[in-house]
Amino acid sequence: MESAMSTTGGHRGGAWNRAIVSLTLLAGCLLWALTDASIAQPLASWNAGPAKQAIVKFVSDVTMEGATTFVAPSDRIAVFDNDGTLWSEQPMYVQFAFVLDRIRAMAPQHPEWKDREPFKSILAGDVKAALAGGETAVAEMMAATHAGMTVDEFESQVNDWLATARHPRFNRPYTDLVYQPMVELLAYLRANGFKTFIVSGGGTEFMRPWTEKVYGIPPEQVIGSQGALALETRAGVPVLVKLPRIDLVDDGAGKPMGIQKQIGRRPLAAFGNSDGDLEMLQWTMAGPGARFALIVRHTDGEREWAYDRTSRIGTLDKAWDEASAKGWTMVDMRRDWKKVYAFQ
Amino acid sequence: MESAMSTTGGHRGGAWNRAIVSLTLLAGCLLWALTDASIAQPLASWNAGPAKQAIVKFVSDVTMEGATTFVAPSDRIAVFDNDGTLWSEQPMYVQFAFVLDRIRAMAPQHPEWKDREPFKSILAGDVKAALAGGETAVAEMMAATHAGMTVDEFESQVNDWLATARHPRFNRPYTDLVYQPMVELLAYLRANGFKTFIVSGGGTEFMRPWTEKVYGIPPEQVIGSQGALALETRAGVPVLVKLPRIDLVDDGAGKPMGIQKQIGRRPLAAFGNSDGDLEMLQWTMAGPGARFALIVRHTDGEREWAYDRTSRIGTLDKAWDEASAKGWTMVDMRRDWKKVYAFQ
Repeated sequence: MESAMSTTGGHRGGAWNRAIVSLTLLAGCLLWALTDASIAQPLASWNAGPAKQAIVKFVSDVTMEGATTFVAPSDRIAVFDNDGTLWSEQPMYVQFAFVLDRIRAMAPQHPEWKDREPFKSILAGDVKAALAGGETAVAEMMAATHAGMTVDEFESQVNDWLATARHPRFNRPYTDLVYQPMVELLAYLRANGFKTFIVSGGGTEFMRPWTEKVYGIPPEQVIGSQGALALETRAGVPVLVKLPRIDLVDDGAGKPMGIQKQIGRRPLAAFGNSDGDLEMLQWTMAGPGARFALIVRHTDGEREWAYDRTSRIGTLDKAWDEASAKGWTMVDMRRDWKKVYAFQ
Repeated sequence: MESAMSTTGGHRGGAWNRAIVSLTLLAGCLLWALTDASIAQPLASWNAGPAKQAIVKFVSDVTMEGATTFVAPSDRIAVFDNDGTLWSEQPMYVQFAFVLDRIRAMAPQHPEWKDREPFKSILAGDVKAALAGGETAVAEMMAATHAGMTVDEFESQVNDWLATARHPRFNRPYTDLVYQPMVELLAYLRANGFKTFIVSGGGTEFMRPWTEKVYGIPPEQVIGSQGALALETRAGVPVLVKLPRIDLVDDGAGKPMGIQKQIGRRPLAAFGNSDGDLEMLQWTMAGPGARFALIVRHTDGEREWAYDRTSRIGTLDKAWDEASAKGWTMVDMRRDWKKVYAFQ
């Protein structure tokens, strides 16, 4: 009897069970692909408004199969400036804070710096005087702190510095000053099949040690300014030594060049905050089909900083005018972001 | 009654059904992840032997969780030379065949070439005489065919050429001359969490138009020799123009440099066939932990070509000695490969 019941039930339930199996399988696979919490609530730190709406619309346009605006996943390339777009760049570029600290740390091995500018002024605590030397002074500081060592040694120096250095205003590690809404945006784009890249004027090798942990962007998707390298043999093993010569300044017109050299296809979407990003945004938008350009405006003097056309760092002037004229998406930090940093 | 039966059956069957659902779900997810046919039968064109065995052992070592040799997926970087390692490089580099054809195609627009070397000899069908001009002649030929156009125009030229050009020995498209066992190796590594890159002395922009389709390697994972670029405005839109100046010769010592510049971490595995790959193999093997270096030896004059120490193209001399001394894996095409090309 029980056997008969089971058989009957089994038969009747058969189609039903198969349907459940299929549905559960489907749901399970979807869940399996979507375990990242940031995807469950995409863009959680973004206020409703035109910026968030434009982002969601663009992503929907290029991912909807069958739509005329659909773009194959392999062509979904998104490029992000770093300083001022993904993390704060005030009161000075983080990499410049690293340079100053490295000069102080290296000073005992360089007694000659006591009498030589720009080092003399930096060691005396007068950065302004050091910078009076202009580009030559900056080049000397960069060469002293970014050349001569192997790429592995430099990576350790960056990691060691980030582990102890604190931002002067927030007294927190510099990597705490990444913009939470932009981290969510990166995750949202990746969840929709995009490959995310950094394209920054900052040094490639200054960024690569930490971008994977902080932004989910692996070293090979970081494009920045690059110094020349030499292959040498030290203690019987091959090493790559950083030379005091710049191969690429990845800023302004250098950004489309860096993109072409390392990515080899035109991005679908570009994100920046200053005039140094203008050529990258123009290059991105000059391609065919659905495109997206976004500029982060620093409008929040309380939670972050407020600056634009006349700022020495992160000047936003020409790119602002072009964004207005072309209808590119503008993010107003104060209006569009629920929080700026995760710790707020 | 039926309702009662269903309830009973449903209850009893509940645990059983849940088990089936779970198992089916698991199997379904696995199948979903493993739909690539090449994974079902990995390395199908490889004969059993020391080379195949070494590959499988290395992959097993670095992917076995808990093993001391385990490597996180994000660090599973594999780099492949292209010419002679992934496809044939005889009787001349494919890119050089492209150069000759382009010069012939462009000749009507360059009447002055009739009286100017190396073009004069090429148009007369005497490549040897053209090459008598040495590096200067080659540089002139490269500049004439690889500079002056936009990157988009160059991409079209490469695609158009590949669509019609035929290899002189096999009378087939050049992309038919990729090594089937190496294509399987690329897929096998990717199925095991590796990210596969090309690191070739050939031109980056000559390879990128077709590597995704042929090898499954997207443009951003292709590193090659690179010319300088200029950002210009033509007809009101920004374009990137190829300049007749080399920024990186991605051969010999240039390979570790290219790897550092574009990938930013040391590969775990490297695959080459000639002395131009030696520094890349050394750089890869100088890292800590489980590592893998492989050299493809051209030993099959019947199905492909047989050449090594004294060949003008793809010279394998110093790298052979070092591979022997260090115990790197050597592939003997004739012995180790069931077929060389997919069409054989």
